[in-house]
Amino acid sequence: VRSRTCVIGLGLIGGSLLRALSAAGHPVSGYDASPDVRSLARTASAKWRIAETIAEAVADAGIVILAVPLPALPAVLDGIAAAGYRELLSDVTSVKEPVRELVAERVPQLRYVGGHPMAGKETSGFAAGDPDLFTGCAWALTLEPDIGPGQLNDWLSMAALVTGLGARVVPVSPGEHDAAVALISHLPHLAASGIATLADTGLAATLAAGSYRDGTRVAGSRPDLVAAMCGGNAAALGPVLDRFIARLTEARRLLDKPDPVQALARWFGDGHQARTRWPPHQGPASELPVSAEELLRTGRDGGWVTEVAADRRTVLAVRPLS
Amino acid sequence: VRSRTCVIGLGLIGGSLLRALSAAGHPVSGYDASPDVRSLARTASAKWRIAETIAEAVADAGIVILAVPLPALPAVLDGIAAAGYRELLSDVTSVKEPVRELVAERVPQLRYVGGHPMAGKETSGFAAGDPDLFTGCAWALTLEPDIGPGQLNDWLSMAALVTGLGARVVPVSPGEHDAAVALISHLPHLAASGIATLADTGLAATLAAGSYRDGTRVAGSRPDLVAAMCGGNAAALGPVLDRFIARLTEARRLLDKPDPVQALARWFGDGHQARTRWPPHQGPASELPVSAEELLRTGRDGGWVTEVAADRRTVLAVRPLS
Repeated sequence: VRSRTCVIGLGLIGGSLLRALSAAGHPVSGYDASPDVRSLARTASAKWRIAETIAEAVADAGIVILAVPLPALPAVLDGIAAAGYRELLSDVTSVKEPVRELVAERVPQLRYVGGHPMAGKETSGFAAGDPDLFTGCAWALTLEPDIGPGQLNDWLSMAALVTGLGARVVPVSPGEHDAAVALISHLPHLAASGIATLADTGLAATLAAGSYRDGTRVAGSRPDLVAAMCGGNAAALGPVLDRFIARLTEARRLLDKPDPVQALARWFGDGHQARTRWPPHQGPASELPVSAEELLRTGRDGGWVTEVAADRRTVLAVRPLS
Repeated sequence: VRSRTCVIGLGLIGGSLLRALSAAGHPVSGYDASPDVRSLARTASAKWRIAETIAEAVADAGIVILAVPLPALPAVLDGIAAAGYRELLSDVTSVKEPVRELVAERVPQLRYVGGHPMAGKETSGFAAGDPDLFTGCAWALTLEPDIGPGQLNDWLSMAALVTGLGARVVPVSPGEHDAAVALISHLPHLAASGIATLADTGLAATLAAGSYRDGTRVAGSRPDLVAAMCGGNAAALGPVLDRFIARLTEARRLLDKPDPVQALARWFGDGHQARTRWPPHQGPASELPVSAEELLRTGRDGGWVTEVAADRRTVLAVRPLS
């Protein structure tokens, strides 16, 4: 019986996922390319099985979740294909359209539902893992408007698994996901790095206080990882960065006016309105009939799924109060 | 005897300053344009004298510190001039070159040392005031390289007063100050507002997590105040925003490369290096002979003054470890 859930890649996210799945009662197996990490994970608990090869890890799995960085994905996909795995595949990579294309190219025989938990910490590695990392966190699961009943059922399987870990499942198409994370994650990284780079003088460092500290915090992240994240989403991030530059160029024009304050107050007013609305207030939960269109509309409107009904004909969904 | 220190404007900064000066043993007087605020301040303690008019407030003051917003400064300066005040004047306004020009134009008879404490809170108003607000905070005090002994003595008077409140005094020219705060305060406000404006969709709001939260935090500030702050520093902020847009445009170009990750890693590397150096480690304190050039060099190198010697021939200065 293919009853196990298998996690490939046991860093912060994969290691947390292994712990969270196990704590929720799932039989789990895990694998990491590093022998040291495998040994660490094996010693940590007898509740999971840490395999010595990808083939061994996926052997009796019904769901395989890839938690490796984007550049490592092609080799791991080849390994899974070589092992003859034919069941459900998901991942936690921060971009979804490039992974969808990669999966279609390398392992077209697999059923795939893309995933992205919006969880993270300043720390990394298996030892930093936390079984509660996903409690209350938004977890994007991708689907397309035109999918068939089999694919919708796969999506529901992943949604049931992930809501069982306490996450809020956000139904989203790969393209919409990538555009949204470009806005809320990759753009803040670009802005933070740009500010930190320019403000690198002795005087500026002394005068810097709260707005510098928070506005540049993520510039402290490892540049190779951030570059992989942004570069992996270049197609979606490019247009977002264009819009950001255009918005700033508008402010630049206002600064040249003889009396810029009133026009600037309107310019800042838009961002103020948006920021004070966030995070949105949570509305009541309601039953939603299962259809790709309904699910995608819910995600687009800022809603999420908290529970999949046992008969899989409805889900419980929450929308923000408008 | 003109022994009092007088604070005009009793909002968060002025109200905190009144409390801090009083706690440090200075006889203080205060004034605010709002009768309600005057009444609140009068009720709060018998240790300070809250005047009913500017003339009454400055009558026996040896130092007057203006803690009103930039747009209110001209009228307050006229009020002080009309009251016949002729002693030392300082302020806490977030831009220094425009205030220097305003003072030279409206009250050329006054001795003036510009000031800017890098302190703030999410809250505002007299009631939110805190006598410890300036402990450990950087407090810019402006001087020019070519000032005479009298002006240098005025600078030392303000430095002695402010270090007595526990602040780190940063010697800086008005122009260098305005360029630095454009980088570390006004630019982060522009970036935060730009991100918040673009990310204002339901889906983005749901997926937004730490990097959005911190990168846009200051977009929650009152847009009219932020616009006044940025618009008041337009001359220094314009070139800084140009450089930021140029830096982002470089990243935009890299995103169009066939394989952008390595070049992006170098681009992010600069900001990472700058951010992980901040805040700089504090070096040992050393005696510095009092001269405008020496003081300005100390500030430019990221140093500050912690104490003014009683004979005013040296100061105790701290530089960051390089």
